[in-house]
Amino acid sequence: MEQRVLDQTLAQVRAYLENNDLAGAITLIEALRPPDQADVFEELHPTHQQVLLPRLGVEDAANILEELENEDAAEVASRLDLETLAPILDEMASDEAADLLGDLLPERATGALAQMADAGGVQALLVFPDDSAGGLMTTEFLALRRDMTVAEALAVVRQWAPEAEAGYYLFVVNQDGRLCGAVSLLDLIKAPRTARLGEVMDADVIFIRADADQEECARLMARYDVMTLPVVDASRRLLGIITVDDLVDVLEDEATEDIQRLGGTLPLERRYLDTSVLQVAWKRVGWLLLLFVTETFTGSVLRHFEGVLSAEVALAFFVPLLIGTGGNAGSQTTATIIRALAVGHVDWRDVLQVFWHESRAGLLLGLAMAALGFIRALTWGTTLPLALAVSATLLAIVLWANMMGSLLPLVANRLQIDPAIVSGPFMSTLVDATGLFIYLTMAKMILRL
Amino acid sequence: MEQRVLDQTLAQVRAYLENNDLAGAITLIEALRPPDQADVFEELHPTHQQVLLPRLGVEDAANILEELENEDAAEVASRLDLETLAPILDEMASDEAADLLGDLLPERATGALAQMADAGGVQALLVFPDDSAGGLMTTEFLALRRDMTVAEALAVVRQWAPEAEAGYYLFVVNQDGRLCGAVSLLDLIKAPRTARLGEVMDADVIFIRADADQEECARLMARYDVMTLPVVDASRRLLGIITVDDLVDVLEDEATEDIQRLGGTLPLERRYLDTSVLQVAWKRVGWLLLLFVTETFTGSVLRHFEGVLSAEVALAFFVPLLIGTGGNAGSQTTATIIRALAVGHVDWRDVLQVFWHESRAGLLLGLAMAALGFIRALTWGTTLPLALAVSATLLAIVLWANMMGSLLPLVANRLQIDPAIVSGPFMSTLVDATGLFIYLTMAKMILRL
Repeated sequence: MEQRVLDQTLAQVRAYLENNDLAGAITLIEALRPPDQADVFEELHPTHQQVLLPRLGVEDAANILEELENEDAAEVASRLDLETLAPILDEMASDEAADLLGDLLPERATGALAQMADAGGVQALLVFPDDSAGGLMTTEFLALRRDMTVAEALAVVRQWAPEAEAGYYLFVVNQDGRLCGAVSLLDLIKAPRTARLGEVMDADVIFIRADADQEECARLMARYDVMTLPVVDASRRLLGIITVDDLVDVLEDEATEDIQRLGGTLPLERRYLDTSVLQVAWKRVGWLLLLFVTETFTGSVLRHFEGVLSAEVALAFFVPLLIGTGGNAGSQTTATIIRALAVGHVDWRDVLQVFWHESRAGLLLGLAMAALGFIRALTWGTTLPLALAVSATLLAIVLWANMMGSLLPLVANRLQIDPAIVSGPFMSTLVDATGLFIYLTMAKMILRL
Repeated sequence: MEQRVLDQTLAQVRAYLENNDLAGAITLIEALRPPDQADVFEELHPTHQQVLLPRLGVEDAANILEELENEDAAEVASRLDLETLAPILDEMASDEAADLLGDLLPERATGALAQMADAGGVQALLVFPDDSAGGLMTTEFLALRRDMTVAEALAVVRQWAPEAEAGYYLFVVNQDGRLCGAVSLLDLIKAPRTARLGEVMDADVIFIRADADQEECARLMARYDVMTLPVVDASRRLLGIITVDDLVDVLEDEATEDIQRLGGTLPLERRYLDTSVLQVAWKRVGWLLLLFVTETFTGSVLRHFEGVLSAEVALAFFVPLLIGTGGNAGSQTTATIIRALAVGHVDWRDVLQVFWHESRAGLLLGLAMAALGFIRALTWGTTLPLALAVSATLLAIVLWANMMGSLLPLVANRLQIDPAIVSGPFMSTLVDATGLFIYLTMAKMILRL
């Protein structure tokens, strides 16, 4: 639904609520699709949310809590009576219900679990971290025994009411519950009714351990175009499934985190506008302070060359230009390498090849910048020796930035540090201090200061 | 499959090929899953690729060409006879076949189309740009008429052999081919055999126009958890479907492009290590030159204050520190806002709210930096007036960087320029020049120079 239409609906819902016409507001909300319901709902005043949610159908209420950001859902849920909350939790997908319970106060979560009709599936999920395969999976899946016939399997499927996304792939297990194959609904329909599942299933099924990281799930599903990934325990017993809509969320979240880290900020836990100013500042201040401290090295380098700078004040005019160019060249390289690492196109074994690639690219770019810098310095009326020093520095600094920019992310990755953290602003700061050193040393030599 | 195992398989395949044991190599490759087949295949020497591909089954050959990067697939295809290529194209998903034909020389593409058994579906796709909904869709879908019974529909489904991903949602059309609903295979199985599709289908189906951008498809599918998105023409006639595996590719590509642009480089068209050094340099040089030219404004600012700098050379020591901090604060803000824009959490209508949010965050961060900067300057043995100037500049520059960093991406987006382009390095350059101006003006006032 278009944002404009959604805004109109929100205005109408608000108008109904102001006039205490709950039924009118409910009719409007129930006509929306779940993500739109959540968008409208989260814009309402908390007192209105509290009145509204119990009056919506349990299914709509469950959809809204599923669609809200985790923290928002927890806030809404913390204001509901346990008698209202428990049936909504029962209706939610078990992974979403477990995430929500994990965000509530422990005594509230225990109280809600006690009142739930079917707490078993959710309770089993509470042991897994949110960002593991076990935390992503739902326990709503159909495990069929391999000695069942196709006709028996179809009869079971007809009795079954899963979420739409979970219904296409069915998993086949041994007597002891170990995963041994998968069959799509389409193949099941096409198979002879008397065939055994063991004969029609695909035994080469891709699966993951419950303790694996969510990024590993995402990479596996994206690479092999897996729509439903079965999750197993250490003895390959089927515990749950991860559906492709979860994969999409993981991919978006991981890209968001990478982009925020590249910008030098810790990942925000909520949507931007729902994050308080204090939170926003808090996520950034540590990094900003750290970079400030490392950046003071540039001051030390400049002090070291105080005599040179006093003798030729025109040297200072080029400082921001030179370190800026070095920083830019470094950012170009790190951004490229970080993304290549994230999508699995390079890894540590490619370090020499990457270094060689970037050294040559840095040489080409450095030569181009040196030529342009030389011309620019002369047209600015700079003396020939200074123009030469600037030009030589540009070549050296771009080459150096490319070499560092290629190594840093790979080394960080090797040391199991997120490469997005060490790069971006940190890269610029490193190149700034070393770049200044290169510049002033060159100038000292060429200008004989 | 683990990278290590894959490398061993590659070594074995190479050994077989060196010994002219084609059958051995083929057996190994055929045992792999398609993405692994493609990974092994692309590492082989072109002459080996050329010998191998026609000897693999048509299905494996089609899978490999589908999985290779577009440019690599075109290179391989350009070396095959048309008699070999045509049946492989017939076997490929129509969207992939159309992409491949679009990358071949026109006369080769025409020749291949002429030899294909079923060129119609592919030809229909050639008119759409690669990055539009029409370019993403496949024409392998089942359109069922709304007056069909469930039993008739199931009979049709049993005759049908689509790709696995395309088989779960079936689309329902009117007599004139207009899309009017969708039904999942699961719901079809559960429905009474004599019901009409018009009664069991979900009429509230989400669809997209063929000329829509791929980003719009991705946003729609991600938001509404759509597994199969129907693509229609202007009169809502069903043209094709987009499956969720295409969505995953689009999301990854868009995130890659954003990260590369944030780093100040044009998106690479191939995997990093398959991109030549010249290409890598070419994608970066324009941006680096442009930033160099804008960065020369910092030199002009410094020249303007030449008298001030000569009078107090210690002023220069703080230049990289101050503009570095401003640049870092600006990058933090732009990265956050750009991602919020990309995932649809903010848009132009939020501009005032975002500006106010960032102004307050900037004030907080600026105060923290000013305090730290003041202490650092004093412990460095700087005079009190200069320490005050540095401290005041830090407050002003961080506030200014946050304000600019919040406006720039939103304005760019409003002007339909990719916000990732104007930010990152460009933001630093802008903040550098204005930051210097703020610094030296403050210093001039406070130090009375």
